[in-house]
Amino acid sequence: MIKNRRSQKAGLPPGTLIYIGDKKVEKPRISLIEFDEFHVNEKELTDLTDWKPVSDGKTVTWLDIGGLHETKLIAQVGQYFNLHPLLLEDIVNTDQRPKADDYSDYLYIVLKMLYPADNADQVISEQVSIVLGRDYVLTFQENGKDVFDSLKSRLRAGKGQIRKRGTDYLCYALIDGIVDHYFIILERLGERIGALEDRCVLDPTNVSLGKILQLKKDTLYLRRAVWPLREVVNGLQRDDNALIKESTKPYLRDVYDHTVQIMETIETFHDQITGMLEIYLSSNSQRMAAVMKVLTIITTIFMPLTFIAGIYGMNFEHMPELKSPWGYPAVLAAMASIVIAMVVFFRKKKWL
Amino acid sequence: MIKNRRSQKAGLPPGTLIYIGDKKVEKPRISLIEFDEFHVNEKELTDLTDWKPVSDGKTVTWLDIGGLHETKLIAQVGQYFNLHPLLLEDIVNTDQRPKADDYSDYLYIVLKMLYPADNADQVISEQVSIVLGRDYVLTFQENGKDVFDSLKSRLRAGKGQIRKRGTDYLCYALIDGIVDHYFIILERLGERIGALEDRCVLDPTNVSLGKILQLKKDTLYLRRAVWPLREVVNGLQRDDNALIKESTKPYLRDVYDHTVQIMETIETFHDQITGMLEIYLSSNSQRMAAVMKVLTIITTIFMPLTFIAGIYGMNFEHMPELKSPWGYPAVLAAMASIVIAMVVFFRKKKWL
Amino acid sequence: MIKNRRSQKAGLPPGTLIYIGDKKVEKPRISLIEFDEFHVNEKELTDLTDWKPVSDGKTVTWLDIGGLHETKLIAQVGQYFNLHPLLLEDIVNTDQRPKADDYSDYLYIVLKMLYPADNADQVISEQVSIVLGRDYVLTFQENGKDVFDSLKSRLRAGKGQIRKRGTDYLCYALIDGIVDHYFIILERLGERIGALEDRCVLDPTNVSLGKILQLKKDTLYLRRAVWPLREVVNGLQRDDNALIKESTKPYLRDVYDHTVQIMETIETFHDQITGMLEIYLSSNSQRMAAVMKVLTIITTIFMPLTFIAGIYGMNFEHMPELKSPWGYPAVLAAMASIVIAMVVFFRKKKWL
Amino acid sequence: MIKNRRSQKAGLPPGTLIYIGDKKVEKPRISLIEFDEFHVNEKELTDLTDWKPVSDGKTVTWLDIGGLHETKLIAQVGQYFNLHPLLLEDIVNTDQRPKADDYSDYLYIVLKMLYPADNADQVISEQVSIVLGRDYVLTFQENGKDVFDSLKSRLRAGKGQIRKRGTDYLCYALIDGIVDHYFIILERLGERIGALEDRCVLDPTNVSLGKILQLKKDTLYLRRAVWPLREVVNGLQRDDNALIKESTKPYLRDVYDHTVQIMETIETFHDQITGMLEIYLSSNSQRMAAVMKVLTIITTIFMPLTFIAGIYGMNFEHMPELKSPWGYPAVLAAMASIVIAMVVFFRKKKWL
Amino acid sequence: MIKNRRSQKAGLPPGTLIYIGDKKVEKPRISLIEFDEFHVNEKELTDLTDWKPVSDGKTVTWLDIGGLHETKLIAQVGQYFNLHPLLLEDIVNTDQRPKADDYSDYLYIVLKMLYPADNADQVISEQVSIVLGRDYVLTFQENGKDVFDSLKSRLRAGKGQIRKRGTDYLCYALIDGIVDHYFIILERLGERIGALEDRCVLDPTNVSLGKILQLKKDTLYLRRAVWPLREVVNGLQRDDNALIKESTKPYLRDVYDHTVQIMETIETFHDQITGMLEIYLSSNSQRMAAVMKVLTIITTIFMPLTFIAGIYGMNFEHMPELKSPWGYPAVLAAMASIVIAMVVFFRKKKWL
Repeated sequence: MIKNRRSQKAGLPPGTLIYIGDKKVEKPRISLIEFDEFHVNEKELTDLTDWKPVSDGKTVTWLDIGGLHETKLIAQVGQYFNLHPLLLEDIVNTDQRPKADDYSDYLYIVLKMLYPADNADQVISEQVSIVLGRDYVLTFQENGKDVFDSLKSRLRAGKGQIRKRGTDYLCYALIDGIVDHYFIILERLGERIGALEDRCVLDPTNVSLGKILQLKKDTLYLRRAVWPLREVVNGLQRDDNALIKESTKPYLRDVYDHTVQIMETIETFHDQITGMLEIYLSSNSQRMAAVMKVLTIITTIFMPLTFIAGIYGMNFEHMPELKSPWGYPAVLAAMASIVIAMVVFFRKKKWL
Repeated sequence: MIKNRRSQKAGLPPGTLIYIGDKKVEKPRISLIEFDEFHVNEKELTDLTDWKPVSDGKTVTWLDIGGLHETKLIAQVGQYFNLHPLLLEDIVNTDQRPKADDYSDYLYIVLKMLYPADNADQVISEQVSIVLGRDYVLTFQENGKDVFDSLKSRLRAGKGQIRKRGTDYLCYALIDGIVDHYFIILERLGERIGALEDRCVLDPTNVSLGKILQLKKDTLYLRRAVWPLREVVNGLQRDDNALIKESTKPYLRDVYDHTVQIMETIETFHDQITGMLEIYLSSNSQRMAAVMKVLTIITTIFMPLTFIAGIYGMNFEHMPELKSPWGYPAVLAAMASIVIAMVVFFRKKKWL
Repeated sequence: MIKNRRSQKAGLPPGTLIYIGDKKVEKPRISLIEFDEFHVNEKELTDLTDWKPVSDGKTVTWLDIGGLHETKLIAQVGQYFNLHPLLLEDIVNTDQRPKADDYSDYLYIVLKMLYPADNADQVISEQVSIVLGRDYVLTFQENGKDVFDSLKSRLRAGKGQIRKRGTDYLCYALIDGIVDHYFIILERLGERIGALEDRCVLDPTNVSLGKILQLKKDTLYLRRAVWPLREVVNGLQRDDNALIKESTKPYLRDVYDHTVQIMETIETFHDQITGMLEIYLSSNSQRMAAVMKVLTIITTIFMPLTFIAGIYGMNFEHMPELKSPWGYPAVLAAMASIVIAMVVFFRKKKWL
Repeated sequence: MIKNRRSQKAGLPPGTLIYIGDKKVEKPRISLIEFDEFHVNEKELTDLTDWKPVSDGKTVTWLDIGGLHETKLIAQVGQYFNLHPLLLEDIVNTDQRPKADDYSDYLYIVLKMLYPADNADQVISEQVSIVLGRDYVLTFQENGKDVFDSLKSRLRAGKGQIRKRGTDYLCYALIDGIVDHYFIILERLGERIGALEDRCVLDPTNVSLGKILQLKKDTLYLRRAVWPLREVVNGLQRDDNALIKESTKPYLRDVYDHTVQIMETIETFHDQITGMLEIYLSSNSQRMAAVMKVLTIITTIFMPLTFIAGIYGMNFEHMPELKSPWGYPAVLAAMASIVIAMVVFFRKKKWL
Repeated sequence: MIKNRRSQKAGLPPGTLIYIGDKKVEKPRISLIEFDEFHVNEKELTDLTDWKPVSDGKTVTWLDIGGLHETKLIAQVGQYFNLHPLLLEDIVNTDQRPKADDYSDYLYIVLKMLYPADNADQVISEQVSIVLGRDYVLTFQENGKDVFDSLKSRLRAGKGQIRKRGTDYLCYALIDGIVDHYFIILERLGERIGALEDRCVLDPTNVSLGKILQLKKDTLYLRRAVWPLREVVNGLQRDDNALIKESTKPYLRDVYDHTVQIMETIETFHDQITGMLEIYLSSNSQRMAAVMKVLTIITTIFMPLTFIAGIYGMNFEHMPELKSPWGYPAVLAAMASIVIAMVVFFRKKKWL
């Protein structure tokens, strides 16, 4: 969705930092983790004044910032790590598409974090920026919630290879964590689609077009979100890049496989929804046909009867039947046999 | 849309300058800016006789011409800067697609400037030609309004990097300024679509097909305008070119990201409109079904009643019911109970 | 469209010259132009016996043949210029797709000339073959009309660069002349579409499906004709080829831009026609709905009235209302109020 | 169409020769032609025992086998010419897609021969395998009919270049002969489509959906058959291959042009059929609308009349009109004027 | 279909072995075959403790494991053959897409084995992982059933080339065995489609939309399963790879041809189903039209009759017809002639 506020930037020089988005947290959270294979050092900072990144060639610095509305802070980080002004602009412009830009000294990756809203069916999308340097990783999130908690505790515990393998593996782990969350969204969407599909089979008259179209919209939205993500991960896994070691590539290929799997699930969803639409439209036209049949049956049965009654309601003086004592019962009997003939006819036509 | 006047060129030799388009300004405006890092010199000229471009290797000359119907002036500029006759022809043929032609000594870029018409929903498209040389930039617009005003004041003020970075950065800034205007068009279109979508949900009977199709047309028009623009910017950003420095590439990549974002927004619009069409068609057929139901209910209730009235309107002499004092009330009671049975039946069928 | 006569060639060895097409001219016209920068020599020949092409390295020979049914003449030209038998076969098989075949010593280009038929809406397609050699250009047309007249007079006048630039520029000028004619066809089609579109908006009931589908067919036909043309011109402009000088490439690129523009206009036409189809189908179903509404209103108003009349047409002896002097006016009043209630109801439902 | 018998091969080792298809000829026909520029030697063999291929570097051996159910014979040929077991398997598996496999020493080409069945509209597809070696060409057909007769007589007569140009030209001539037959199928299909299209315009009510869909199916079938054929010929014409001389390439390019032309005709057929479907559906819904109109007109005219008759059928004692001598004619006149008003109304609405 | 359990892996480090899927066998089956050209040694193991792979450069070890829920066993195999942790994770994550990952020392291939469920129409999909090393092949299946039985007996018998050609040929034979099973699924699906198609032609009113859509779903499911399979086999056949010998490539190309054939058959199925849908929808709307016609005919016949009866039911005192002795028979005759006129009219309109 386009943000209204982007147009306010028309005419400004490039690199101007203006935060586009809602302020989601009162004060930005700055958490710092410095680690090498044997040590972990974790701190929450209030500002970056007086701070200096370690650069002993071994220590990996991970600076994780939550909350992007204090553009001065972003500018400060940019100065410390000598980042390109356009990169800083992209961090605060939270309507970016997922992409990976290679600035030779560092790699800039923008992703979308998706998580379910508190109230049922909606999905909240948040921009996560990752800057991968030779001995540092910077992450920028829109709010203060920490989506990387499980990763941080793995770092603290020193489990797995996370502490031994340098910045590119950390970057992979961050991306992997984000992509894993997509499966949760996918499962929720899948459940909603499955539930509606069941209703479509059991009681199609009660399914509303609006709900089907809403699901379609959500699926298209997800597809549009995952498509560039797939491209980004594919690029990281395939292209040569001084910052990403050959030994990390299989892990990125694994993430890539996940994104392909997600795309495929979305395609399946799309087919399911298309099928539902066809059932919906068809059941609608069948209900219409049922109404028509009732109308036709009623008309077909009563029109001849009413006509016969009309005949004997005529006031001709010379109508011998009227005088006969058997006239009335005979007419009633004739009417009854017409009704029976009709019903038999409709049975044969399978309208009843 | 194809201009009728293009066919008048059939049979003429290439390079013949004939202005295709409406004369939008009485007299062409010629504004000249010469600048280097420390000086800016700005002039409005009335003609180019006696003028000579500075070429001291440092000064950047930007010649901005508004109004293309005086083809002699265009030819004069062509002579001064030694431009290819086909290029000059393209400048005055204002039905070009956006494109970038590389003439080794200079680069010729055609873009479309879009801005909203004064009366609400329409979009005006105007051709902007940019010639990027080693120490000059030429711009040609159809009318006298200056779409580059904010850029010129940035040049005067010397803010940002605009004065330090040479012709390619100026060219980038021009393109960026044009692309930024697309967001304004996009937002307006988005608002119109959103408004119609709301109406589709609240009161679908009042939405007209014509309006939906108009929006679809506008969206397709925009897509067709942005698609080649994207290609042009992608080519500038990716291809090697002696006139565009490596350090300017990230800025062009940034513009490219914007065009991709615009394309995506347009795709979303397209999906929204498709959804509206489906709702429109479905609500139409539902209204039809509602009409059918009313018809059927009326027929089903009154046909048997009228038939019964017809029965007792017959003139048989031997109809004992007619003599009974309870005959009339009994028939009325029977009719009432038929009506009640019908209503219960329809309630069960969910037609009422 | 497939020609029936192609099947008669099954089983014949390749290179057999059989003219496929209608004989459009009594006797082939052979016109010869020999020129260099300073001289032009123009002749109409009756046959090619005793004729010999000049080959002094400077003179350009342009042999333009109209009428292909005398295959002996084609074979003779083939001998003079040492052309491949398959090429000669392609010249007389007038159901070729546009293509460019490179026979190293010469280039063979097939194009389709389109021009409007005398009676309004039809398009006549004719095959034009161009053979581009180092110092000669051969053109073969199906009929005797000369589509290259304006080019010949430019040659005679020596205007522009046409006499200075050799065979490849002449070849470009020929292609350009043909492509320019497409714009005329396009404008005619555009006018027809525009006229029908206007009618669709003003009076959709009077638009016939047949006309819309005819326009769609014409548009598809044109698209199919232009698509390979675009490929041919693109190939000429992009590929390396000893026969086409670098300085002629920008001109071919210009023709290529024209073909792209034509393709785009056709796409726009296609969208317009799709929109018309949607309006047509929708207006059809709306007319149906209007008929339904009339039916339902009539039924709904008169059924209860007829029923009431039926009630008081019953012959019961004990119906006190019948004796009352106010019975008749009271019933009429009741009927009137039912009608009024109905009308109010339908007004509210927006059916009236 | 999938053959049932392929599943019987699951689990067998590759290279097992099992003929999949109908036995179309009692005994395989083996015809042998050995030729060089000056001699032709033609024989019908009964088996291959005691036979040895000539290999003097000049003679071309063409072995043409009709009937594939004697797998022993196929295996024998395989031994003589040292063919790969998979190739032999492909020869007898007659559900292959057209393809060209390069086994360096020889080239294996599978094509589909299409010819019309005796009874009108059907097409019979038969597999033709061609093995192109340095000095031999092997062809395998399913039945005994000889589709290469005209080629053989050209060989005997020594007309054209067929005897001078070696195995690759012979192979080209075989492919060309097969592709030429496609035009016959195409023309038949085109005639059927044209005939149905005429009927669609003249009398759409009599066109059956089944026939249109059958044509669509046939067109899709043909498209699916031609598509891989095109790829095969394109590969032969474009790729480097020691067995195909440069001088034969233009001939293959010519065949390729034919396949492209066939594809295009098929696309046109497809469009025509789509148009017919649209006309069919639209004429259906228009017939429905016509029925509705009749219904509505009848109802609208007679309901008010019947109501009026009902009024004066009421048995009120105080209805002054009933006593008037002009009552009856006045009512009849009123009814007549209602009918006239209705008809005028419907005329205006264009329903009559 | 997305598995619910994948989301439980979010946040875990990569390489964590968690089996996703149903436990299909009580205890994993471990079968070991060691063979060279002259010997075969076949064993069923209960666990892998104390076992060591032979590595004499000649013997090929094939370890076939059925049942993946004992992740310890998988980890053990991983240790023996030094496999990448991500590979092991992929083995137990049974929702992989078919793919081939090249880990330079070995090749990891994931495929889907499809076989029909016991109850008629369903298809069971099971993941088969193949690890191809220089002198070993590992296969991992989900259940204990052995889909490779026929291959094993070929190994035992030493028939064909299977024992002479090393690990890559064994790997080919495994893939070939799996792909051959697809034809069985395809034939079943083809039979179901054919049966429904016959019913569509003979008695379209009895075909249910649900069945058609189910077939469409199954076809789409199959397409989605085969598509990546095709890519995998194409990659193996085309790419250079130290583990796959040049002489095995033709065999893989043969498998590739099979996958292409399968894809094509699926496309044909898809077209057939689309055709059925069109017939279904059209026959539905034709039934609707038939109902309408009955309604219209009844109304058109009886309305005028009832009206006439109503006329003569009016109570005017001065209606001379009522007194005439021929009045009644004349009216009846008039009614009869109206009916006859109607029937003739409808016959002409082809409604009867």
